[in-house]
Amino acid sequence: MEESALRREDKKVVAVVGAGLVGALNACFFAKRGFEVEVFETREDIRKAKVVKGRSINLALSHRGRTALKHVGMEDKQIVSKGIPMNARMIHSLSGKQSPIPYGKKGQYILSVDRANLNKELLTAAETYPNTKLNFDHKLQDWSAETGLMTFARPHGSKTQTQADLIVGCDGAFSAVRKQFLRRSRFNYSQTYIPHGYMELTMRPRNGEFAMKPNYLHIWPRNTFMMIALPNLDKTFTCTLFMPFEEFEKISTGDEVIEFFQKYFPDAIPLIGAATLRRDYFRLPAQAMVSVKCSPYHIGDKCVLMGDAAHAVVPFYGQGMNAGFEDCIVFDEIMNQFNEDFSAVLPEYSRVRVPDDHAIADLAMYNYVEKNRKIKSFVHFFLKLLDALINSFHPSANIDQVFQVTFTRTRYHVAVERWHWQDKVINRGLLLGAVGAAAGGFYLLI
Amino acid sequence: MEESALRREDKKVVAVVGAGLVGALNACFFAKRGFEVEVFETREDIRKAKVVKGRSINLALSHRGRTALKHVGMEDKQIVSKGIPMNARMIHSLSGKQSPIPYGKKGQYILSVDRANLNKELLTAAETYPNTKLNFDHKLQDWSAETGLMTFARPHGSKTQTQADLIVGCDGAFSAVRKQFLRRSRFNYSQTYIPHGYMELTMRPRNGEFAMKPNYLHIWPRNTFMMIALPNLDKTFTCTLFMPFEEFEKISTGDEVIEFFQKYFPDAIPLIGAATLRRDYFRLPAQAMVSVKCSPYHIGDKCVLMGDAAHAVVPFYGQGMNAGFEDCIVFDEIMNQFNEDFSAVLPEYSRVRVPDDHAIADLAMYNYVEKNRKIKSFVHFFLKLLDALINSFHPSANIDQVFQVTFTRTRYHVAVERWHWQDKVINRGLLLGAVGAAAGGFYLLI
Repeated sequence: MEESALRREDKKVVAVVGAGLVGALNACFFAKRGFEVEVFETREDIRKAKVVKGRSINLALSHRGRTALKHVGMEDKQIVSKGIPMNARMIHSLSGKQSPIPYGKKGQYILSVDRANLNKELLTAAETYPNTKLNFDHKLQDWSAETGLMTFARPHGSKTQTQADLIVGCDGAFSAVRKQFLRRSRFNYSQTYIPHGYMELTMRPRNGEFAMKPNYLHIWPRNTFMMIALPNLDKTFTCTLFMPFEEFEKISTGDEVIEFFQKYFPDAIPLIGAATLRRDYFRLPAQAMVSVKCSPYHIGDKCVLMGDAAHAVVPFYGQGMNAGFEDCIVFDEIMNQFNEDFSAVLPEYSRVRVPDDHAIADLAMYNYVEKNRKIKSFVHFFLKLLDALINSFHPSANIDQVFQVTFTRTRYHVAVERWHWQDKVINRGLLLGAVGAAAGGFYLLI
Repeated sequence: MEESALRREDKKVVAVVGAGLVGALNACFFAKRGFEVEVFETREDIRKAKVVKGRSINLALSHRGRTALKHVGMEDKQIVSKGIPMNARMIHSLSGKQSPIPYGKKGQYILSVDRANLNKELLTAAETYPNTKLNFDHKLQDWSAETGLMTFARPHGSKTQTQADLIVGCDGAFSAVRKQFLRRSRFNYSQTYIPHGYMELTMRPRNGEFAMKPNYLHIWPRNTFMMIALPNLDKTFTCTLFMPFEEFEKISTGDEVIEFFQKYFPDAIPLIGAATLRRDYFRLPAQAMVSVKCSPYHIGDKCVLMGDAAHAVVPFYGQGMNAGFEDCIVFDEIMNQFNEDFSAVLPEYSRVRVPDDHAIADLAMYNYVEKNRKIKSFVHFFLKLLDALINSFHPSANIDQVFQVTFTRTRYHVAVERWHWQDKVINRGLLLGAVGAAAGGFYLLI
């Protein structure tokens, strides 16, 4: 008992900034190790909020994410039971024909999960640890990499300060923690917005049942446009339409929406409903998508970035959340390896994890090949590159890579290396560049 | 007279943030057009400062930079007369042999100019316009892209606010103006630090004369290391040593400095002086070099980035200042074209200038090919790419490109396109990636 009391006294404070998916999960990982965990979140508690802000409604949970959830004992009961298995993709042709493309081996599936529900479950799980405290309505204003002192703005203009032994930045693609990194020398950083935006539309149940077959990831590939649909527990589908911003902007009336759908997604009109389409298309403007890469992920022994704060990815490989959840496992493994000594753990985490997170950011970007850029002198090379891209990304090819990324914990950068054409076309930054200037379509690889 | 008075009353206010080289020159351009120009600079007036902080001592002024100076009537008298023509590069071999490599055509030269002197002359030139006011000790804290309202911190903690019709961010690679851009959606940005650092060493006169032939850009190419030397009016040379940070860090005693120079730059030891070397090597730590690219350069009709704030480049093509000065001409040309209507000028400036500034950032980076990165699976492709790089960058090849970049105003992106192997290896982002992972040496292209 005395030893336990002593340990409690010695406990180090870990501040997790951001109570989104990765922040909440990470709080569980640190709490399980016995740290004094303080979670700080800008927004209110989503479990009490009337309207949950935020974008994507559902997400594809695959092997890496599930493994991370299992580590904190919450894979099955709360999450998997509330997810909908998607055993294959279902390709919708222009004529309305539907063709399934299964995930390589029999029995393999990914799960469509509700983002808000998953986040709520993770927060509740974190709170069950007596050594974890959740602090909502705390907006990070400033922090010191030297002392670990953080300043938060509270509602009504007040401020509060807290000191931590370790600050874990899980505050998303527009991370406030990361701002401090940007001020330091030799921090490499890039943010790349793609010319496509996305818009979510809801397909309601038909006669009390799913309007389409539920256990599929539905895909309408249309060259520069694409729509996908994931099933929800309430028997709706969330459809996500991807297209260049300028195409979104061309459509300004309900008639034009219907005309557009008639041309590209005619089978979806009766499923979503013409009246709903006319209205919902104008509910929110199309949203931007950004790819963020940086290095290193840590400063000294005081701060580390994880999840989207370290590596926001475009959604075309369905790995954003899964990569963020896997960050938590990788960090946890290194904590074991180095006896929780932050001064050794943090550099090792950057060393090990940066190449993998960069690999998945790039893989996701490869699936997005922008069309119609007329950089003429570049065309020759790109036609070749494009061949490689198209061959690689057609879902019937490339099964091995998709398998490794989606159904194993093979390190992302290893999955990239094993990828044949990678031997020829190489380096990620390289391809990122290529993607920006190539001509072609884009595809989904989940 | 009445009309002139009226015009004066209507005058728009242009705030130039940053009184470095590009800011001071830009102030002249805007003042010449009759705008009410306010220049804001964080530091004190360098013309009054006892110690001028800042890094590089001298710079290579070439055609683009000179053309911009000519636009505001100050090329010859103040600047060219105080620069030292460099008619050729002078390559120093390990054995001490010196071999000149002239700039393509006879009579072509670039000028070694003193950065501090050039900056002072530009500030004085800007101040001769009655419609220009220089405000030193003004550190930009915040500004609004909607209203043009800026808040500056003054010494001793006070603050001051000013409103402008146009804010021109010329505040360098770590631009405070740019921070506001980073918060906006669809702003693409990257900062890439290269693994090399640089250190400046002074070579004093010998018997009252230059220690080496003055009218040359002296270069000691040593694969992953490189030293260059540019002449100064006071008959000194400023030597700049480039090498990977970890190599700099290996040297911790005076003996090790001498040992290192004996191995790589033996002919420089008597020229710099062993005692000076032993001391000066430890005066300042090696400095980092960053390449910054972003897009677009403007927000609405209120703000535009120019110079290093928009495109910091690595120094291996000697085009940093020249590109920044050319920015001023390009903006000026577009101002003519669109009748000083900022709402038309700013988007056009981004459209026209981004590809050129990205091209020169990439060209400068291509000259820097990092050695010794052992990414084995990538080697095959890179050996080929490297061939292309080495062939292209050897100064005896590639004369046409160097000529266009250094001695003409051919648009940078056109110089890139005309470059033969570019047809094969393509896109800049691509090469930037390549450069990061390739094996080879690096070279200077000025």
